[in-house]
Amino acid sequence: MSEIKNIGVFTSGGDAPGMNAAIRAVVRTALYHNLQVTGIRRGYEGMINGEYEPMNRKSVSNIIQRGGTILKSARSEEFKTPEGRKLAYYQLKKHKVDALVAIGGDGTFTGARLLGDEYGIPVIGLPGTIDNDLIGTDYTIGYDTAINTVINAVDKIRDTAESHDRLFIVEVMGRDSGLIALRTGVASGAEVVLIPESTEDLPALLHRLEHGRKDKSSRIVMVAEGDREGGAFEIGNIVKEKFPQIDTRVSILGHIQRGGKPTCMDRVLASQVGFAAVEALKAGRKGEMAGIINGEITFTPFDQACKKNSHKLDANMVKLVEILSL
Amino acid sequence: MSEIKNIGVFTSGGDAPGMNAAIRAVVRTALYHNLQVTGIRRGYEGMINGEYEPMNRKSVSNIIQRGGTILKSARSEEFKTPEGRKLAYYQLKKHKVDALVAIGGDGTFTGARLLGDEYGIPVIGLPGTIDNDLIGTDYTIGYDTAINTVINAVDKIRDTAESHDRLFIVEVMGRDSGLIALRTGVASGAEVVLIPESTEDLPALLHRLEHGRKDKSSRIVMVAEGDREGGAFEIGNIVKEKFPQIDTRVSILGHIQRGGKPTCMDRVLASQVGFAAVEALKAGRKGEMAGIINGEITFTPFDQACKKNSHKLDANMVKLVEILSL
Amino acid sequence: MSEIKNIGVFTSGGDAPGMNAAIRAVVRTALYHNLQVTGIRRGYEGMINGEYEPMNRKSVSNIIQRGGTILKSARSEEFKTPEGRKLAYYQLKKHKVDALVAIGGDGTFTGARLLGDEYGIPVIGLPGTIDNDLIGTDYTIGYDTAINTVINAVDKIRDTAESHDRLFIVEVMGRDSGLIALRTGVASGAEVVLIPESTEDLPALLHRLEHGRKDKSSRIVMVAEGDREGGAFEIGNIVKEKFPQIDTRVSILGHIQRGGKPTCMDRVLASQVGFAAVEALKAGRKGEMAGIINGEITFTPFDQACKKNSHKLDANMVKLVEILSL
Amino acid sequence: MSEIKNIGVFTSGGDAPGMNAAIRAVVRTALYHNLQVTGIRRGYEGMINGEYEPMNRKSVSNIIQRGGTILKSARSEEFKTPEGRKLAYYQLKKHKVDALVAIGGDGTFTGARLLGDEYGIPVIGLPGTIDNDLIGTDYTIGYDTAINTVINAVDKIRDTAESHDRLFIVEVMGRDSGLIALRTGVASGAEVVLIPESTEDLPALLHRLEHGRKDKSSRIVMVAEGDREGGAFEIGNIVKEKFPQIDTRVSILGHIQRGGKPTCMDRVLASQVGFAAVEALKAGRKGEMAGIINGEITFTPFDQACKKNSHKLDANMVKLVEILSL
Repeated sequence: MSEIKNIGVFTSGGDAPGMNAAIRAVVRTALYHNLQVTGIRRGYEGMINGEYEPMNRKSVSNIIQRGGTILKSARSEEFKTPEGRKLAYYQLKKHKVDALVAIGGDGTFTGARLLGDEYGIPVIGLPGTIDNDLIGTDYTIGYDTAINTVINAVDKIRDTAESHDRLFIVEVMGRDSGLIALRTGVASGAEVVLIPESTEDLPALLHRLEHGRKDKSSRIVMVAEGDREGGAFEIGNIVKEKFPQIDTRVSILGHIQRGGKPTCMDRVLASQVGFAAVEALKAGRKGEMAGIINGEITFTPFDQACKKNSHKLDANMVKLVEILSL
Repeated sequence: MSEIKNIGVFTSGGDAPGMNAAIRAVVRTALYHNLQVTGIRRGYEGMINGEYEPMNRKSVSNIIQRGGTILKSARSEEFKTPEGRKLAYYQLKKHKVDALVAIGGDGTFTGARLLGDEYGIPVIGLPGTIDNDLIGTDYTIGYDTAINTVINAVDKIRDTAESHDRLFIVEVMGRDSGLIALRTGVASGAEVVLIPESTEDLPALLHRLEHGRKDKSSRIVMVAEGDREGGAFEIGNIVKEKFPQIDTRVSILGHIQRGGKPTCMDRVLASQVGFAAVEALKAGRKGEMAGIINGEITFTPFDQACKKNSHKLDANMVKLVEILSL
Repeated sequence: MSEIKNIGVFTSGGDAPGMNAAIRAVVRTALYHNLQVTGIRRGYEGMINGEYEPMNRKSVSNIIQRGGTILKSARSEEFKTPEGRKLAYYQLKKHKVDALVAIGGDGTFTGARLLGDEYGIPVIGLPGTIDNDLIGTDYTIGYDTAINTVINAVDKIRDTAESHDRLFIVEVMGRDSGLIALRTGVASGAEVVLIPESTEDLPALLHRLEHGRKDKSSRIVMVAEGDREGGAFEIGNIVKEKFPQIDTRVSILGHIQRGGKPTCMDRVLASQVGFAAVEALKAGRKGEMAGIINGEITFTPFDQACKKNSHKLDANMVKLVEILSL
Repeated sequence: MSEIKNIGVFTSGGDAPGMNAAIRAVVRTALYHNLQVTGIRRGYEGMINGEYEPMNRKSVSNIIQRGGTILKSARSEEFKTPEGRKLAYYQLKKHKVDALVAIGGDGTFTGARLLGDEYGIPVIGLPGTIDNDLIGTDYTIGYDTAINTVINAVDKIRDTAESHDRLFIVEVMGRDSGLIALRTGVASGAEVVLIPESTEDLPALLHRLEHGRKDKSSRIVMVAEGDREGGAFEIGNIVKEKFPQIDTRVSILGHIQRGGKPTCMDRVLASQVGFAAVEALKAGRKGEMAGIINGEITFTPFDQACKKNSHKLDANMVKLVEILSL
């Protein structure tokens, strides 16, 4: 393997707060080692289309606290084809990029793995997604910010719920995973959490409204968008029909969950794994995602990082939500 | 007129941040004048149902910074009937409440006016609504907090809009009024604002997307919920159909706009008019809303405060939105 | 007078949140009128040193929500000399800047007035200072953000004050003016406010601690940094000595008051006066500050805008603080 | 051992955000198990003085999001004496409290251990301190909120630092530990972090200012209050003397670091360990602190939890700060 001289960095998939902190860490660490760094804009799309720019210290000044990604992100259908990847490879060669740091989720890593397998480009991935659904890291970059955005929104909703004795059904992100719903449910004092992983939660909600305490002045129900019993509107309609006496409202938090200034934890995590990615490339690692497990930097092969995660405390957390909101 | 000894205070209609600061000001000012104060819970509903509680200094400790209303709010169909108001009157007499401070919007003042006309109860109203749609005050309590909540949400949305080169259509509150949409549109750098007061705004949006700059990396369009061309989803569908190449998303901000800690301005406004309301009742005023116009406490008869407001700078602000987002 | 073709814009004096929104409004409005715009960095210092850069639409993209000033600010001793101003004039000519928008406080306007008087450069000023101490505008750009920063900090301090039954003496900005202290005192539920405009406030505090209610669980005293009886530390020592049984703490809020994302009000104000400044220059106005009084754009000659302001409601607000915290 | 029927809960030492979430979890879990719960106000002081109150579901409604502690906290010299503890014991017996959950830091646990050793009262401790300096848990309740408060403050300070090309020396909490300074230093993009654990950091700062890049537009230096080379003012004076050309300012963040709404992480942690504490008492555990290590509830004897912690990643983090701010 020839020595790495120029590291390309890009973000791909849905943007997540902390991606900029990760980009900064990659750029600064590479410069510290006297490597060149090339920013690739718009993910695999820009990799194919030639959106490359050299990055220096100033390129990443004053971005650690910004949401979104200064390198932008995009989906690329073309990259999913062999022809697309060939174009990407030629562009990488043309711009003399000989290693990559890919920031994104499992789709990002699938692409990275193909690029490594087919063209031998060393790639290290960083877990940048608000969903926290990757094996190989306790937390993904953006998750902590997203759950804080959710609870701050629910705190506001609770003000009005309390004032009007209402039940609010709040839909949060999580297409395949209830991790955001569950954790924010605990932190918001929700009654019940409806998540894709369970089919007992809607009956639990209805049972509770039927037989539980009647003197509650407000109630919050948290629904993951991927819940199999329906999103917040469907759940809302079921509740309204069965309990017309309850003043029930629905709120979809939506895209605000993706943006905003990253929290301390997301900035630190992004800085640590961004640093580790460059060190790893220098040390000859490739085809792996850098994450943090139990406080230690950990590398996980892309094919394993692609699988979904089921976190340890979750069963206990469902119980926690129930007991603490009694 | 006999001397006032016991002032009742209540909140009615949609809750608004700063209502607690107003309650606090009413209670503390009344106590300062050695008057009794009675909190009436759940607005006119509780007034009829006997939800009265004496309030002291401690009752309003540490609430100035809280959203919602500790006295809760509710709609009352019963109060709209003469029988309902008669019941309310008996309850007020029973609890020896001989004057009222009513915090809410124009519906609240309509009720207050009837109570004054039919039973001679002196009532002073305070403008508590996020909509800022009342004549008789430059700003209503809660409006400043609501518009700040909106722009903080749009700042987050812009992070993701910028990252993905998207157009976001953001729906904000305002059933009959575009005041929230217009002001937050200026403050968020929106392209176009769609408001109930205008029918030229949808053509303006489409014209702009057709003929305007193509190099914009993100676009925000603000829609008031009462816009006559449809809410955000309808507008979104029109845009998506006409401009399929634009990555268009919709976000309904919803109930988060009602809650949250009041801003400095809302706390000060609420404190000033709450103080003024008690002073006014002591001075024999009644049937009026206390507001602030051009920095001066101003009293406006309830029937005039009920009408909608058209603010002076609005035509200019539509122009501002257009020019500044070019 | 020859027609204006190129407007220079700069910020000077202490930075204030909303300055970027003002710069954006100036740039976009000028471009709308097909004028050129030149950004001058570091205020009068950069005007002399040749720090000029042409600005386009992109230069001010995505800055409306940012604190600080992208054009930076600096103090300039050189500009206070005739030689310095001559250099500034030559630089302006060299860069073909034929009119200016100056964003800052009274020091900024003094400089602007001299430049106009001595070299005939038309200048319009915008009130950019957190102190709100300028005649000619109800509010200055940055003031609303600063007072919200203060009350958010005091809300946090009150959490710990309540938990430990403490008295907190909080020092806020305001060298010559108690406007920040007074308004945030009302909004924070402070006991007493110590401001430069009064010498009765320290005795009032001591009297209250001696004779007032003993059952208060927490107390906040707000001190403007320019208070003549001393800053927060001095006041703290006096209180500690006279009332050793009270657990008294001091907190200096300091520089956090200058930064942060501007509030909605500051962004709108900055946008309105930024727009007005360019319109005014085009219409031939000069030597004036553009502000908003009672909702209307108002122009005030620089020599009048330099004087300090005494706001109408202040005497009432001192009384408000006292009564509402009883 | 007789069966537990009534659990007392109290907070002690410095307040920390999330203490209320912990109280709520203890109360609700105990009620779920049909146990009585008694709130003891003002820590050991109130335990001696008889400040006991029975708690029910409503006692802890709507507090999960509040900073501070509804049970208040206090220092008690009396409890450090055998006589004081005997009085505490009699009061506990009088109020039929037969087990305790103690929320606080190592001082709190020292007291709890004595109470257990001398009078056989089973006590489980919860780590409630912003300092994160306890063995037996990866994070303490309040730490995550405190570090987010710090970085939000530094983000504001950086706005003004950038605008004026200044060096800011920011002092954060941490009498014996640099954990807050180090983590927030990484997250704020600080140049250098000065912490009690190191004596090489002041020379490193001076070396950097002497030999490092001269083109930095702003610099942040983070100082832990317990730094042995002095607090922020001392460091500031050294820098000002050696580098008079650098515009150096000092900011002491102070008490705002203790308050505020707890973050999602602090609420979840507090809920988990609060739940675990009651379960542990029921299962016969005592004399231990409940924490979370690597995602698992872990119990640590009080005498071990009292020692200070040195976290694994810290040496790397000092390096991170240095490299990423180059």
